[in-house]
Amino acid sequence: MAEAAPQESAPDSTAAPDDPLIEALRGLLGERLSTARAVREHHGDDLSFHAMAAPDAVAFAQTTEEVAAIMKFCAEHSRPVVPFGAGTSLEGQIQAPEGGVCIDLSGMQQVLEVNQADLDCRVQAGVTRKALNHHLRDTGLFFPIDPGADASLGGMAATSASGTNAVRYGTMRENVMGLTVVLADGRIIRTGGRSRKSSAGYDLTRLFVGSEGTLGIITEVQLRLYGIPEAMTAGVCSFETLAGAVDAVILTIQSGIPVARIELLDEHQVDAVNRYAKLDLPLKPTLFYEFHGTETWASEQAELAGEIAEGFGGANFQWATKQEDRNKLWQARHDVWFANLALKPGAKGWATDVCVPISRLAECILETRKDIDETGVLAPIVGHVGDGNFHLSFILDPNAPEELEKAEAVNERMVMRALSMGGTCTGEHGVGSSKKKFLQAEHGEAVSVMRQLKLALDPQNLMNPGKILTV
Amino acid sequence: MAEAAPQESAPDSTAAPDDPLIEALRGLLGERLSTARAVREHHGDDLSFHAMAAPDAVAFAQTTEEVAAIMKFCAEHSRPVVPFGAGTSLEGQIQAPEGGVCIDLSGMQQVLEVNQADLDCRVQAGVTRKALNHHLRDTGLFFPIDPGADASLGGMAATSASGTNAVRYGTMRENVMGLTVVLADGRIIRTGGRSRKSSAGYDLTRLFVGSEGTLGIITEVQLRLYGIPEAMTAGVCSFETLAGAVDAVILTIQSGIPVARIELLDEHQVDAVNRYAKLDLPLKPTLFYEFHGTETWASEQAELAGEIAEGFGGANFQWATKQEDRNKLWQARHDVWFANLALKPGAKGWATDVCVPISRLAECILETRKDIDETGVLAPIVGHVGDGNFHLSFILDPNAPEELEKAEAVNERMVMRALSMGGTCTGEHGVGSSKKKFLQAEHGEAVSVMRQLKLALDPQNLMNPGKILTV
Repeated sequence: MAEAAPQESAPDSTAAPDDPLIEALRGLLGERLSTARAVREHHGDDLSFHAMAAPDAVAFAQTTEEVAAIMKFCAEHSRPVVPFGAGTSLEGQIQAPEGGVCIDLSGMQQVLEVNQADLDCRVQAGVTRKALNHHLRDTGLFFPIDPGADASLGGMAATSASGTNAVRYGTMRENVMGLTVVLADGRIIRTGGRSRKSSAGYDLTRLFVGSEGTLGIITEVQLRLYGIPEAMTAGVCSFETLAGAVDAVILTIQSGIPVARIELLDEHQVDAVNRYAKLDLPLKPTLFYEFHGTETWASEQAELAGEIAEGFGGANFQWATKQEDRNKLWQARHDVWFANLALKPGAKGWATDVCVPISRLAECILETRKDIDETGVLAPIVGHVGDGNFHLSFILDPNAPEELEKAEAVNERMVMRALSMGGTCTGEHGVGSSKKKFLQAEHGEAVSVMRQLKLALDPQNLMNPGKILTV
Repeated sequence: MAEAAPQESAPDSTAAPDDPLIEALRGLLGERLSTARAVREHHGDDLSFHAMAAPDAVAFAQTTEEVAAIMKFCAEHSRPVVPFGAGTSLEGQIQAPEGGVCIDLSGMQQVLEVNQADLDCRVQAGVTRKALNHHLRDTGLFFPIDPGADASLGGMAATSASGTNAVRYGTMRENVMGLTVVLADGRIIRTGGRSRKSSAGYDLTRLFVGSEGTLGIITEVQLRLYGIPEAMTAGVCSFETLAGAVDAVILTIQSGIPVARIELLDEHQVDAVNRYAKLDLPLKPTLFYEFHGTETWASEQAELAGEIAEGFGGANFQWATKQEDRNKLWQARHDVWFANLALKPGAKGWATDVCVPISRLAECILETRKDIDETGVLAPIVGHVGDGNFHLSFILDPNAPEELEKAEAVNERMVMRALSMGGTCTGEHGVGSSKKKFLQAEHGEAVSVMRQLKLALDPQNLMNPGKILTV
């Protein structure tokens, strides 16, 4: 649950001065073990609107073996462990409500291998998606998953991140080929492998993807890569109605047009973007498109999508094929978080997401919009509409707790609405501590199986306790 | 391990006449519980070359609730359970070496829902892929995964099947959205859901996909569907060398050309196909292609792939755009199993597969071919080469046990070769009983995690015991 509680600073060290675990870790890591307040607070706070909860110490790891050694010490002393990548998670994944040790993996920055012919690579968990794409710049390859923030790839695997072009390239679930994981008892395992497919035993890779550090700590990630398309075309189109925009998306997807991105901004979101990025888009429900392919094929896709949009009241199609123009357009889309914060100076943001079958998307968004307006909170809507996934960005005055209360009620109603439509409480942000309360409603008896798996792998409940499940 | 042991018929009933489990199941199912020898033997034998191992009884289930009731009885009496779909598995998945009850799901034939706008459907486990596509015939949609055999969709999920067009549409892993599963204690769970993506908790769906009935019995499957492409173009091209053919594939994939299928037949396989399907393909390494898209785009893909092939010594490209011609071509590809059996009258076949990173594929196939020739067994090679996956079909005289011995040695060397190249012991056939011995070499310490999960969900080891893992 998001909490607006005024954040009292954590004491300089919460661990007892002679804490044997801290002593052991200091022996292992030297200056790469910190108990300084500022460091601990930074590691107990995320991008979103949750109360900071600092760990007792932060361990800056550099290798898988070091993570395993830290884990063994923590297991021996029965102390919780919280993994930390870039700190960009949104649902309370990195807070340490039970204290313990935060393992910061951001120093694990090596790209371990790039296999150009096989379109794959292996990276340490701390490499961010932008750093990887920079590393790949001369290969003709790229890693497409783009959740907006420059998250670490280990963190993206841990939360099953996705973002704008999941509609074409899939999510982390489809693009992680294998993992190196440190388990609760310090064992190191390698899951998956480099072949494109395998039926050899249980799919441990996808069990750890999205497990948010509750089953093990991801220290290395094997990823699929893609050839950079010869041509990219981007376009913007505004619609008379939100239902028209969504229906255009449904037909586009059904027609097999492989859109690389297709994003919906409601009129409130367009307004925020116009102000922030100095654009003059009509104040209407708007779709942002991007198409990848050969010159001919990207143009044909754009033309077909354009015809479909017209049939549903889409107008004023603006196309951008030059990289400069495309970048300007997509920068505006990527900046919605800051555009939204700028709507209300001094405000803090709280991002939440749900995902529904696409046939219910218009209905789900419209009812949610109505609820927002009637409740009287500020919350533009933006959506990865090709997947049926959309986000609310609540823009809240940190000094007005009633705003948070209203937002929480809107969020809860939105989640229950999504579930009643066959959807999920989170399409890409994960469960963290915020959405635990919805898991039973979504998965029913299956939650008991998740709990069995958790206890089998982490019987002491040391791995990021309090996240995803109550055990 | 494949075994050529002469198959003695199982006695008419192996269960004691007053077996209380059989009595209980008969009370539940009446005539849908069989202990007849012929029925039991049919259910203990697969398409491949493994010794038949009959269960004590076969239960013909019609609903999830019935499967759960059967499972509860078996748990109460600590007796093994083996799920059975269409009986088309290849690695000893359906044999019942420890007896117990085979649950035949082939009567679970209902297509429960088709959601056209959302491109998804839900089926009972016994629906076969052809039956589903027949059901979909007026919707403009299709389910693409095609392992060759008309397998049940529950069985395809359980073995993580794929086949010729996985290179474009993915495997069962990417196309199963959710499952209904009966657990070892009779609990019924629903995993996944209808939204295109979710980060809500552990990915149970993909844990059960490929678990071959060892963690639970899949009774319903939620699947992704696709719009039937406007145009399909197929083509055949022969190459001077196998390395040339594979290099053409690598560049085609790297260029982002979304081939729907790209299959490699070595010259021995081409010979078998020519004889069986009365074709006159040159006796050379040959690629079969298929492209899906709009008219313009499918043609452009074919043209681009053709140019690439030419650069690697590909010649005699033959194109087929008419459905009739495409069908003839792909029928020949689909019939390789029978074409191979026809090479040696009275022979039995044993199909095995491995998968490697595509950059190692030519090397892996050539070394395997050399080994086959030196060892002196008959084994054409066919491959889903876009994925790096290829198959040997050993064609064996059932009365010459030395042939099987040689084949087993070739298979073992092939698997170890694939593993040394970063590959997997099976790309799509699964582990069953045959490939258990390779799991440790492939996954190392991770096998201990698989075992922990197995014991957490099935502490009595009742679910398809002896498959995938030794517990």
